[in-house]
Amino acid sequence: MAGALIDLHPDRLFPAEPTQRAIARRLYGCVSDLPILSPHGHTDPAWFSRNEPFADPASLLVVPDHYLFRMLYSRGVNLDELGVPRSDGTRPDVAMRDVWRTFARHYYLFRGTPSFLWLEATFRTVFGLHERLGEANADEYYDCIAEQLATDAFRPRALLDRFGIELIATTEAATDALEYHRALQGTPWADRVITTFRPDDVVDPDRADFRRKVEQLGELTGEDCGRWDGYLAGLRQRRALFKSLGATATDHGHITARTADLDRAACERLLQRCLAGSASTEEREQFRAQMLTEMAAMSLDDGLVMQIHPGAWRNHNPSLFAQYGRDKGADIPTPTGFVEQLKPLLDRFGNETRLTVILFTLDETAYSRELAPLAGHYPALLLGPPWWFHDSPEGMLRYRERITETAGFYNTAGFNDDTRAFLSIPARHDVARRVDAAFLARLVADHRLAEDDAQEIAQDLAYGLAKRAYRLGNHGS
Amino acid sequence: MAGALIDLHPDRLFPAEPTQRAIARRLYGCVSDLPILSPHGHTDPAWFSRNEPFADPASLLVVPDHYLFRMLYSRGVNLDELGVPRSDGTRPDVAMRDVWRTFARHYYLFRGTPSFLWLEATFRTVFGLHERLGEANADEYYDCIAEQLATDAFRPRALLDRFGIELIATTEAATDALEYHRALQGTPWADRVITTFRPDDVVDPDRADFRRKVEQLGELTGEDCGRWDGYLAGLRQRRALFKSLGATATDHGHITARTADLDRAACERLLQRCLAGSASTEEREQFRAQMLTEMAAMSLDDGLVMQIHPGAWRNHNPSLFAQYGRDKGADIPTPTGFVEQLKPLLDRFGNETRLTVILFTLDETAYSRELAPLAGHYPALLLGPPWWFHDSPEGMLRYRERITETAGFYNTAGFNDDTRAFLSIPARHDVARRVDAAFLARLVADHRLAEDDAQEIAQDLAYGLAKRAYRLGNHGS
Amino acid sequence: MAGALIDLHPDRLFPAEPTQRAIARRLYGCVSDLPILSPHGHTDPAWFSRNEPFADPASLLVVPDHYLFRMLYSRGVNLDELGVPRSDGTRPDVAMRDVWRTFARHYYLFRGTPSFLWLEATFRTVFGLHERLGEANADEYYDCIAEQLATDAFRPRALLDRFGIELIATTEAATDALEYHRALQGTPWADRVITTFRPDDVVDPDRADFRRKVEQLGELTGEDCGRWDGYLAGLRQRRALFKSLGATATDHGHITARTADLDRAACERLLQRCLAGSASTEEREQFRAQMLTEMAAMSLDDGLVMQIHPGAWRNHNPSLFAQYGRDKGADIPTPTGFVEQLKPLLDRFGNETRLTVILFTLDETAYSRELAPLAGHYPALLLGPPWWFHDSPEGMLRYRERITETAGFYNTAGFNDDTRAFLSIPARHDVARRVDAAFLARLVADHRLAEDDAQEIAQDLAYGLAKRAYRLGNHGS
Repeated sequence: MAGALIDLHPDRLFPAEPTQRAIARRLYGCVSDLPILSPHGHTDPAWFSRNEPFADPASLLVVPDHYLFRMLYSRGVNLDELGVPRSDGTRPDVAMRDVWRTFARHYYLFRGTPSFLWLEATFRTVFGLHERLGEANADEYYDCIAEQLATDAFRPRALLDRFGIELIATTEAATDALEYHRALQGTPWADRVITTFRPDDVVDPDRADFRRKVEQLGELTGEDCGRWDGYLAGLRQRRALFKSLGATATDHGHITARTADLDRAACERLLQRCLAGSASTEEREQFRAQMLTEMAAMSLDDGLVMQIHPGAWRNHNPSLFAQYGRDKGADIPTPTGFVEQLKPLLDRFGNETRLTVILFTLDETAYSRELAPLAGHYPALLLGPPWWFHDSPEGMLRYRERITETAGFYNTAGFNDDTRAFLSIPARHDVARRVDAAFLARLVADHRLAEDDAQEIAQDLAYGLAKRAYRLGNHGS
Repeated sequence: MAGALIDLHPDRLFPAEPTQRAIARRLYGCVSDLPILSPHGHTDPAWFSRNEPFADPASLLVVPDHYLFRMLYSRGVNLDELGVPRSDGTRPDVAMRDVWRTFARHYYLFRGTPSFLWLEATFRTVFGLHERLGEANADEYYDCIAEQLATDAFRPRALLDRFGIELIATTEAATDALEYHRALQGTPWADRVITTFRPDDVVDPDRADFRRKVEQLGELTGEDCGRWDGYLAGLRQRRALFKSLGATATDHGHITARTADLDRAACERLLQRCLAGSASTEEREQFRAQMLTEMAAMSLDDGLVMQIHPGAWRNHNPSLFAQYGRDKGADIPTPTGFVEQLKPLLDRFGNETRLTVILFTLDETAYSRELAPLAGHYPALLLGPPWWFHDSPEGMLRYRERITETAGFYNTAGFNDDTRAFLSIPARHDVARRVDAAFLARLVADHRLAEDDAQEIAQDLAYGLAKRAYRLGNHGS
Repeated sequence: MAGALIDLHPDRLFPAEPTQRAIARRLYGCVSDLPILSPHGHTDPAWFSRNEPFADPASLLVVPDHYLFRMLYSRGVNLDELGVPRSDGTRPDVAMRDVWRTFARHYYLFRGTPSFLWLEATFRTVFGLHERLGEANADEYYDCIAEQLATDAFRPRALLDRFGIELIATTEAATDALEYHRALQGTPWADRVITTFRPDDVVDPDRADFRRKVEQLGELTGEDCGRWDGYLAGLRQRRALFKSLGATATDHGHITARTADLDRAACERLLQRCLAGSASTEEREQFRAQMLTEMAAMSLDDGLVMQIHPGAWRNHNPSLFAQYGRDKGADIPTPTGFVEQLKPLLDRFGNETRLTVILFTLDETAYSRELAPLAGHYPALLLGPPWWFHDSPEGMLRYRERITETAGFYNTAGFNDDTRAFLSIPARHDVARRVDAAFLARLVADHRLAEDDAQEIAQDLAYGLAKRAYRLGNHGS
């Protein structure tokens, strides 16, 4: 296959049937040039702050992308061959060019996956490479990409401009030094590169460094974080700091969606036991559950939009975790029950029109059964876009098909790419815009929706909804 | 958008692809004029008994329809603005015209939902309104609808005729006075407007008025309903009365599908504890579970078809419930497990060919995993049509796609609209007939099914299956 | 309907839209003539060993096929009328011709089901019958099929050739005498008809004859199977014997996917309690769970591929079971959780590249949520094709749509028909090849996949993947 010219087709991801394809083209035409809002993601703020050139093709595109190396791992390639660093800080003795060759040799594994779509678009439109990648042209690809990465046009800020990214949010832990976002203050980039408050490090007692992180929270804020009131005050201080650096949102990655609404004494007791390391599994879960409700309370006060990302069993593979640490493709979704688990939070705050809680799921069965009915009722709730494993053309279609009929379009939060793969951001938004155009085209072709209504919706899905949901009114253009 | 002429397209909901569309048109042509059977729903029997004109557009179309006001509520409109009465009986001080204006201003929220399809069809075909509803023409709509509602042609019985409704079943509680159905006896309408026996009021000990309702059951029947035998005898009497007023079916809205088959002593003990208010959560659930099995036993005797509607977490929003009461859009589906929960009932009655139990679900994951395999084996079981949140074009397609391949078409019960929105009944049946035509057209176009077979099936889905499943042989034309 | 000529359309199961249909035709053209690998199924090895003619149409096609008689049973036909033998060994007093007539009269029930597709293809292509089966031509069908079955061209081995079956695996219990496979050794058929090691009889303490079967295992192997070490040694011996008779795989039908990794003392204790009949429900489940892990350990040693088929609630209908025994259409799927249940096995063996564990499911919700993420990470895992109730065109599409985007094509194991209905094998593979062509055609038409890539994938799905997954390198052509 390698060697053949494979160009991106202008109609890719549109339905083949001509009536629908023509409608999809027109709808996509209304949104293809809209600026990109990336209000939730995991890029490295150092890139935008320092604006240094990226190192090389493999360490930019392969080594940090667990979507890619987990697929090769599943077919027998070990992580050392892929240059993945070990958790003790050592790096395998492998040349980045060899990592790239191994990746190219296994590129066929991605056929039919969204990674394939994102990579193809990146190779073609970002680097101008028009042959299908394979073993034969691996070096040619490597050299061509490496050469371009060394130029000023491929520095991070230049790419932000080229990609049409109006705003990008990174995600930092509650105790993060935030040095890169601080450095951006006073520059024209401060409004375009913002942070997000992610307090998992100080609210998840299952983490090995939980106690140390809470102590650090105390040091950073001058609050007595060993006690419940001080701990909450410390969190409030950090939220205010994040907000001053542009944050409009928080993010919460919990294993379940469980929430709680305990009295003050119970909270104090739970915090003490968690800090002392004597809390039971159930108590640690209760603590996280209570903290989601506390975060909602703080959001009602400070206006930060709350994002809940539940349901990933992190680090399912213990021997891999021991060697390589977190985020190595061994996070597996689990069934997630929202109706019972969110009730304590919703009982307190579900009817608040000033609060925005954006729900994500890795359990698609919840779309039509739980999430759309919840979001179609509670004023405080919006639904985030299809997440992680489901951020794919089929996954996006399933989302629209199962959400829309109960929750409509206006209880959803717009697209966010949620990625650490910076170069794929335009491709990811493009896929989402194309799939939404395809979905809307079907409704128009079936005479369920007028085409002018569909145009308005397409623009909202591509831009307007995210701007409103994430309260980006004061940001960007 | 308001102002544009938006007519119903004759091909709406048919596949855009021309071969399939042509087949769908032909199949739909075989069923579009069939009479409507509405064997399960929640319209008000007073309408058909008194035959008085409907009051005004908002109190007919908006105020009682939780599909509509929950969507506006979810985007920040409060229920007072929508004229929703409070549970203390007071009504908000809002003019119905203003309720209508608020509804019209938010009509865009329904784009992509089945409510939009039903409303569009109602506006166009029932009221002859051909502009898209919006803020600008809200008053025009209101006046036009109000004027027509005041005419004799829009009285309930005239609409039954105009809509081609051969038979409609309402649903009444076991202790209902049934005055409207009694009043219909001896008139030509008695065979067209029948009741359904819904004993939730006297079998659900979680209801605040359970004890009072059981006492009322005793008063109505002269049985000693404080004891197990008398209680069952009272239920049998009421079933017989409902049957004499035309009922062919019962309906059971339980939070789970759990059934039980306990011995007489255990039943007596459970009843005593439930009446005394001393039953635990588990005992109250056991009581409901046992009562499903008792109802099946009575159905085997008296021939009433049994409908089980499990899986709704009713009144999930306690503060809304405290202010506005039941059926306010705060009922949320939950996962429902049929295989284990129905087993006690099926162990006793699953092999009875004279019994018909129609199962519904709010948990679509059960379609292919549990419901189709169960219905494809047990003689006593049929599957009801897609229910509530899933009564939508996409929901209906999912149902056919996941049910048919294991259970075929003939283990399903035909369409029932299950609605309290009387004016939408023709539109709802029309949507179902169109979606079934679209599904069958795909099978024909893929050469999985011959077109003459598909015609026969389409007619069964639109009319014959419901007639047989609900035993309507002695009713209607 | 009966009487009409109904021929198989060459484009059946391809999308109706012309662009996609043309692509699907081309892709199918690349695979339609590939030989059939049937590496997992339940045909009777006696057929191939003895090569005697089949008895008659009904006892070949209806009586043993629970897909067929369960559907008739669900609509009120009793199993005696269908000639199904009772578990006491008696047969109902019914002529096979009358069984066939009953079947023909109810043939319309199968419209829309995969059984209908398989039967139509069998009637048309195997027997040259071109009218739609119905009551009117039931006898004509019976006579025509009976006549052909009596000829040499319809003996089992001739059909293997005619069907292009390169290899077929039957499935035998651990204690099976294996006389038919032994008899094949030394003949040219030994490489084409192989066995599969299915040890449920000696690892499932819920079976009434468990103790007897373990004793039998001891007698067959000379090991002391009343003790843990001897029991494992006995199993190892039998695996070696199966392997010597061609087996490349094992098969495990457990009610859950639960695995365990207990210490030796706990294993010994569990075995003792299971043999003594004193094990609790939980202990019996633990024993099965442990045995899956033991089987994985043995597979790592002897290279047999391990298949896990979890999630069927066997014999859900106790009165039917009492009269007719196992496999009577009363097996119902249940929710299956793989992420937690497989963890003990995966913790030990998930990273082994030399081990192949093929996972199947009856719970489609696990496809995108659990199975694709697990198979897309763990080197030891592959996903089996859609199983049992989901082995249908829609089920196959759902599988591809939900698996591919996370796991790609190369973490799947290819198609296996898993059937006891020998005559339907070509039709089943043909359906799978057509549906895969249709799925791939959509990706090509949407410009997600190049057509030459799609061709290569189609060939792998039809042949190559099964050959590699089941390690059939030394078998067949």
